[in-house]
Amino acid sequence: MSSTIGLLYKVSTFGESHGKAVGAIVDGCPANLELSEADIQPQLTRRRPGQSDMTTPRDEADQVIILSGVENGKTLGTPIGLMVNNKDQRPGDYGEMSNVPRPSHADFTYQMKYGNRAASGGGRSSARETIGRVAAGAIAEKWLKEQFGTQITAWVSSVGTVDARDLSAAPPTRQQIDANMIRCPDEAAAEKMIKLVAATRERKDSVGGVLTCVVENVPVGLGEPVFDRFEAKLAQAMLSIPATKGFEIGSGFSGARMFGSEHNDPYELKADGSLGTRTNYSGGVQGGISNGEPIIFRVAFKPPATIGQAQKTSTFAGEPTVLEAKGRHDPCVVSRAVPIVETMTALVLMDFVLRQSYRNDFA
Amino acid sequence: MSSTIGLLYKVSTFGESHGKAVGAIVDGCPANLELSEADIQPQLTRRRPGQSDMTTPRDEADQVIILSGVENGKTLGTPIGLMVNNKDQRPGDYGEMSNVPRPSHADFTYQMKYGNRAASGGGRSSARETIGRVAAGAIAEKWLKEQFGTQITAWVSSVGTVDARDLSAAPPTRQQIDANMIRCPDEAAAEKMIKLVAATRERKDSVGGVLTCVVENVPVGLGEPVFDRFEAKLAQAMLSIPATKGFEIGSGFSGARMFGSEHNDPYELKADGSLGTRTNYSGGVQGGISNGEPIIFRVAFKPPATIGQAQKTSTFAGEPTVLEAKGRHDPCVVSRAVPIVETMTALVLMDFVLRQSYRNDFA
Amino acid sequence: MSSTIGLLYKVSTFGESHGKAVGAIVDGCPANLELSEADIQPQLTRRRPGQSDMTTPRDEADQVIILSGVENGKTLGTPIGLMVNNKDQRPGDYGEMSNVPRPSHADFTYQMKYGNRAASGGGRSSARETIGRVAAGAIAEKWLKEQFGTQITAWVSSVGTVDARDLSAAPPTRQQIDANMIRCPDEAAAEKMIKLVAATRERKDSVGGVLTCVVENVPVGLGEPVFDRFEAKLAQAMLSIPATKGFEIGSGFSGARMFGSEHNDPYELKADGSLGTRTNYSGGVQGGISNGEPIIFRVAFKPPATIGQAQKTSTFAGEPTVLEAKGRHDPCVVSRAVPIVETMTALVLMDFVLRQSYRNDFA
Amino acid sequence: MSSTIGLLYKVSTFGESHGKAVGAIVDGCPANLELSEADIQPQLTRRRPGQSDMTTPRDEADQVIILSGVENGKTLGTPIGLMVNNKDQRPGDYGEMSNVPRPSHADFTYQMKYGNRAASGGGRSSARETIGRVAAGAIAEKWLKEQFGTQITAWVSSVGTVDARDLSAAPPTRQQIDANMIRCPDEAAAEKMIKLVAATRERKDSVGGVLTCVVENVPVGLGEPVFDRFEAKLAQAMLSIPATKGFEIGSGFSGARMFGSEHNDPYELKADGSLGTRTNYSGGVQGGISNGEPIIFRVAFKPPATIGQAQKTSTFAGEPTVLEAKGRHDPCVVSRAVPIVETMTALVLMDFVLRQSYRNDFA
Repeated sequence: MSSTIGLLYKVSTFGESHGKAVGAIVDGCPANLELSEADIQPQLTRRRPGQSDMTTPRDEADQVIILSGVENGKTLGTPIGLMVNNKDQRPGDYGEMSNVPRPSHADFTYQMKYGNRAASGGGRSSARETIGRVAAGAIAEKWLKEQFGTQITAWVSSVGTVDARDLSAAPPTRQQIDANMIRCPDEAAAEKMIKLVAATRERKDSVGGVLTCVVENVPVGLGEPVFDRFEAKLAQAMLSIPATKGFEIGSGFSGARMFGSEHNDPYELKADGSLGTRTNYSGGVQGGISNGEPIIFRVAFKPPATIGQAQKTSTFAGEPTVLEAKGRHDPCVVSRAVPIVETMTALVLMDFVLRQSYRNDFA
Repeated sequence: MSSTIGLLYKVSTFGESHGKAVGAIVDGCPANLELSEADIQPQLTRRRPGQSDMTTPRDEADQVIILSGVENGKTLGTPIGLMVNNKDQRPGDYGEMSNVPRPSHADFTYQMKYGNRAASGGGRSSARETIGRVAAGAIAEKWLKEQFGTQITAWVSSVGTVDARDLSAAPPTRQQIDANMIRCPDEAAAEKMIKLVAATRERKDSVGGVLTCVVENVPVGLGEPVFDRFEAKLAQAMLSIPATKGFEIGSGFSGARMFGSEHNDPYELKADGSLGTRTNYSGGVQGGISNGEPIIFRVAFKPPATIGQAQKTSTFAGEPTVLEAKGRHDPCVVSRAVPIVETMTALVLMDFVLRQSYRNDFA
Repeated sequence: MSSTIGLLYKVSTFGESHGKAVGAIVDGCPANLELSEADIQPQLTRRRPGQSDMTTPRDEADQVIILSGVENGKTLGTPIGLMVNNKDQRPGDYGEMSNVPRPSHADFTYQMKYGNRAASGGGRSSARETIGRVAAGAIAEKWLKEQFGTQITAWVSSVGTVDARDLSAAPPTRQQIDANMIRCPDEAAAEKMIKLVAATRERKDSVGGVLTCVVENVPVGLGEPVFDRFEAKLAQAMLSIPATKGFEIGSGFSGARMFGSEHNDPYELKADGSLGTRTNYSGGVQGGISNGEPIIFRVAFKPPATIGQAQKTSTFAGEPTVLEAKGRHDPCVVSRAVPIVETMTALVLMDFVLRQSYRNDFA
Repeated sequence: MSSTIGLLYKVSTFGESHGKAVGAIVDGCPANLELSEADIQPQLTRRRPGQSDMTTPRDEADQVIILSGVENGKTLGTPIGLMVNNKDQRPGDYGEMSNVPRPSHADFTYQMKYGNRAASGGGRSSARETIGRVAAGAIAEKWLKEQFGTQITAWVSSVGTVDARDLSAAPPTRQQIDANMIRCPDEAAAEKMIKLVAATRERKDSVGGVLTCVVENVPVGLGEPVFDRFEAKLAQAMLSIPATKGFEIGSGFSGARMFGSEHNDPYELKADGSLGTRTNYSGGVQGGISNGEPIIFRVAFKPPATIGQAQKTSTFAGEPTVLEAKGRHDPCVVSRAVPIVETMTALVLMDFVLRQSYRNDFA
C-alpha cells in the first residue's frame, strides 16, 4: 500500500471505513501558519455524505481533531496529526456479501493482493478514506491563498449525458457552486441533473459525471520536468481519487482533433505588464511548468458500483449468483467529489511551491 | 527538475537535444536477465525521427551503448548505464528565435523557472529527452515478457478528426501496426490519416492525435492504493510524455455518461478456471489494483507546437512580432509516440511488480 | 521536517511532548500478521520514564491504541494508525526559560530553523517523540521473529567511564538485561553504573553511556549498496535517536587500528552446512550486505543536556545569564534507550527484507 | 541496489570497476552555476590511485566528461550527466579466484544477494564506484562555497596506532594536507604513518585509519528532524563509503564518558553579533539541526581486505583453501578517502540547503 503523497509537503493517510478513526499526518507544512480546526472543517463538511437527498443518509459528523503540530494557534513546522473518529464502527455489517466480490468494487483485487480484506464497508477503498486527504489539502489551500491568493474552484460540469455550459473562462465562486445540491453553477443544467439523479435513484441505478476545476493565481514556474511535470502529478492525484476514469488538461482530448495553427497559444503583454497568452488551450502549463495562466482540467467519474438492482455475477468460487445491494446508496458521487478534487489539487500545488522555492533566491 | 521515476525500478534520465549525449541509469533491474544492446535498439529505432516522410528528416542513428550493469551477457543487479551520443550537436542553431518565446513551447516557462534555458532545440523539453526512457523501458518490457508473457501494444487510433475502428478488444500485433507509416492498424483509417498529415504538412501546419494501448497478461494484484493506484501512476507516466493533454482508462470520459447497471463488470468463471469479468469497462483495474483483465487506456496528444506558418505573437519583452519556424518539422508526432507509450507503460508495470512481490511469499 | 523513514515499511511519526497525542502510521506492513495492542505495549512500557529511580518520575501510562489497519486480529495490509495520548498536556510549563536557549538543547536551532518552537517540553526534539517509532518497530520485531526467528538485543555496555565486559559474542536475553534497573547484564559493572548514576543525580549532573546491540538470525543478502548499505541505513537510524553522538559496527573505531591480516574474517563451513566466517570483525556485513553472521554495533549517547546545576550561558538576545533547570530530570538515559535502539533496528531490517524479496523468486 | 542519494540534489551513480565507464547523473543542481570539467577534476585527481608509492600503481587518468546540463559554461538546471571512461577494462582478470570468496570482501554477499557478480575487480563494491560521487560532490562543493563560503576539509588523523595531534579546532588547508603523501597535516605523525605504511606493504599486509573532517561556514538551520537529522544523514553518507566501520560527531564516543556539566555547550555572543557556543562538543548540531558552529566528525576505515599474505579460508563450496592476492594493492586507503569524505559531505549539505530554503522566505 502507498498512502503517502508529496515530496516536501508529505501527506500520509490512514483509516478504514469502519475502524476506529481515519486521518492523516502532514509533514512539511511551513511554520507560523495560523491554523485551527475551523480552517479545515468546511471542506470536510462539504465532503460529508447526508447533506441532501442527493447523497447517502449515513450520518457522519466528521469533526476533525488536530493532534499535534500546532501550538498557540500557529503551526510549529512539525508534523500535523489529523484525526476524525468513525462513529459508525460496524465490522461485519456487509458480511452477507463476503463470498461474492461486488462487481466493479475492490473486493476481488484487495483479496487477491493482500490475501485479506476489510469485512465491511469497502475498508481502504471506501470513499471515507478521502477524509485524511481533504483535511491535509484544506491546510494547503489556506497557505496557498495567503501566499499567492491562489483560488481553486471545482464544480460539476456533467452528470450522465447532461452537460453544463463551459464556465471555465470565468469560474464561479464556491458560494455559487454550493447554491444547488448538485454543485453545478449552470442552473438550467443543474435542474436537469437533479432530475436525472432522482430518476436514477428511483430505478436503483447510479450515474457518472465530470468535474471541471480551475486554479487562478498560480505562480509561474511550478512543476518539475520531466517525470513530475505539473500535469503529470496532477493526473496522478486525480486518478488516485476513487471512481475516476479520466483526466484532461486544457484542450484535452478535443485538442487531439485540432491543428497547431488553432491550438498554439500566442504570447501578448498583459495589463499588469507580465507576459501571458491570448488563448489557453495549454491549460496553464507548458513543458510541464505552470505559465501563470489559469490551470484548467476535467476529471471523469464512473457511476458508483453499488446499485440496488439485481446483478448476475459470480461468487469468489466461480458459482453464478445474483447480487442486490441492501440499504440506500449514493446514485451519484460527483457533488461530494468537489472538495476532494479541490483539496487534492492543493496538495499538488503546495508540493510544487515548496520544491520550487530555492531558484527564486538564487537566480 | 525531477528526472527520476520509479521506486524499485528506478530510472534517471539525462540529456538535452543538442548536448553531447542523452541516456539513463536503470537502478533496480533484477540480476540474471540476458541483455545486450540488441534487446534495446528496436524500440529506439521505432522512436527515431526520419523513418518516413511522415516525420522529420533529421538523421539520428540513435545507437544505444550499455556502459555498466551487464557482464557476460547478463545483468548484474547493479545500475545499467545507457547512453546514446548526439550526432547533431549544434548549439545556437535556433538562436534567431532567442528573444521570442515560441508559442505553446517551453521556452517561456523554462526561462522563468530556471533563469536560463538551452539555446537550441528545446533542450530538455525536446522529444529527444525520451530516448533514455525508451531504452530503460525496453529492458523492462523484456523482463516482463519473460516473467509473465506480458504484451504491451500501442497504436494510433485517431489523427485530427480521423478515427480508427475500436480494436482494443482484439489488439493488433506490432508487425500489423508497423505495416503502415502512421502506425494505425485500421488500414482504411490509416489511409485517410496519411492524407490528412500530408495536407497538413503542405499547409505548414500540424495536427494532434490519440493513441490506444492495451496490455495483456498482467498479473493480478499490481498497483499500490491509495496514492499510487495503478491508473494514477500510469496517468502520471503518460502525462509526463511531451505534448500529452489527456489520459483515460477503460470506459474513460464516456464512462461518465453511463449508468452503473451498464458500466459494472460482472464476474464469471473463465475457461482457465480463474475468476474474470464479462465486460471490461474498468480497463483492467479495480480499486487501483490490476484484476487480470487487459489494461486498456488512451492518451491524447496535442498538435506539435512548431509550425511553419506565420504566427502573431510577442517577444520576451512584450513587443508584438511574427514568428515563422524555419526548416522541416514533424506535422504529427503520434506515430513516433507509439514506442514511447509502450515503454513508459513497461516502466510503470515493472515498478509495480517489484513492489508487489513480497505478498506472494507471505500469504 | 522529515518524520518518515523507510521505503517499503514506511513509518511516519507525529507529536510533541505536550500536545494531545503522539503516534505513527505504519504503511507497508504485510497483511495477515496477527496483531493487537498487546504485541506493541511491552517495548513502549520498557521505554517509559518512571520505571525506577534511575529515571524521571513523570508518570506516563503510554497505552497504545491501534486506530486502523487491523481487523479480526489480523493486519489488512493497509496503514496501521498508532496513537498514544499525552496525559501531561502542560503548554507553557517551561515558559520561564523561553528567552534563554538551553545549552546543548534544540531550543536555539528549532527557533532559527522554524521561526517558532514548542513553548514547552522540547516539543518534537523531546524523547517523547520516540514513542511512535517504538510502536512501529515493535510490529516489525514481531514480524521478523515470526518469519526468520530474528532476535534483536540491546543493552547498556558503559555508563560514563564504567565499562561492562564485552558480551557481544554470546548476547544476554532481554530478561537478563531487565534484571537490573540500568539494563547492563554484567552484574558487577551494573552495580558500579547504578552508583555512578546516583552520585551524578546527587550532584544535579548527568552522564552519558554506550549501548551495544546484537542481531541474530538475520537473512543473508539484506542491504542495498551503494547508498543504502546495511550499515549506512543503520547508522542513519541510530543517529536519528536524540542524544546520540556515534555509531560503530563490528570492529568499529578499534578496527581502524588493526592490520588486514588480523581483521579479515576467513570463511569456513558451519555446522549447518552454510558458509560463515571464523571471526566477525565485519559485524555481520560485507560490501553493505548482511552475510548471515550476527550484526554487532554500538551507539554512543551524550550526557542529557538538562541538568540542575547552574550554567553560565546567554539569552537569545546575547545577554549573559545563569540557567538552573527546575524539577527532576533523568541523569542518564541509556537504560530507556534500550527499546528505542532495538525497535529502530527492527525498522531498518524490516525495510531491507521487503526491498530484498524479489530476488529470491527470480534467481 | 540503491545508487541514488539526496532528495532535491539527487545523485545517481553507475559503473563497475572493469566495465566501459563509471559516472553519475546530478539532478537538482541550481541553474546558472558556472561549471566546467575543470571545476570537477581536482577532487577526482586527488581520489585517483597511483599518485604516490603510498597507493596502487594502476594508472587511471580519470578525466571527467560533462554529457549534459551545462551550456555556454553555465548549468541549465537540468540533469548533469558525468562520465569517466574505464581505461582498464579487463573482465576476467581476477578469474582465478572465482570459486573462492575473498575474506572481508563483497564476493560472498553479492553472490548470495544477486545470484551473480562481476567477475573481476570487485564490480560495484570496488573503490572505483566512488568516482561518480566525487564528481557530483565537487559540483556541490563549488556551489556551497559560492553561496556561503562553506569550506569542507578532511585529513588523515590516524593510521593504525599512530595518532596525529587534534587539529579540529583550527583546521589545516587542503594545501597543507596535500603537502605529504599520507595527507596528515601533523608532520611528525605523518612521518611515522608513512613508515608504518611502508613496513605494512613490506609484510604484504594492510592497515586501517581514521579521517577527521571539519566544515566551516555552515548556515544555521540545516537538517531535517527527526529521521533526517543532520548527523543521521551524514552518518549514512559516511557509512556508505567502502571500508568504513564507524562515525562520530563532536564529542562522539568520548562524549559518552563525560558529565553533562562538562559536555554542555553554553551560549555566548560572538564578535559578529550572532549567538554561538563557547565550546563545541555538539560538533555543530543540536536537535539534528546545524547551529552555525563548525561541523566536526570522524570516520573509521578498516584495513583493506586485499592482502598479499596467504590466508587460510574456504571456497564457496566450503572446502578449505589458501588465498594469496596477486599483484600490488593499496596497503592503506585513508589518504585517497580524503576527497571522498569531503565530497560526500558536500552532497549531504547541498541537499539540506535546498530542502531548507523555503522557510527563509516565509518566516
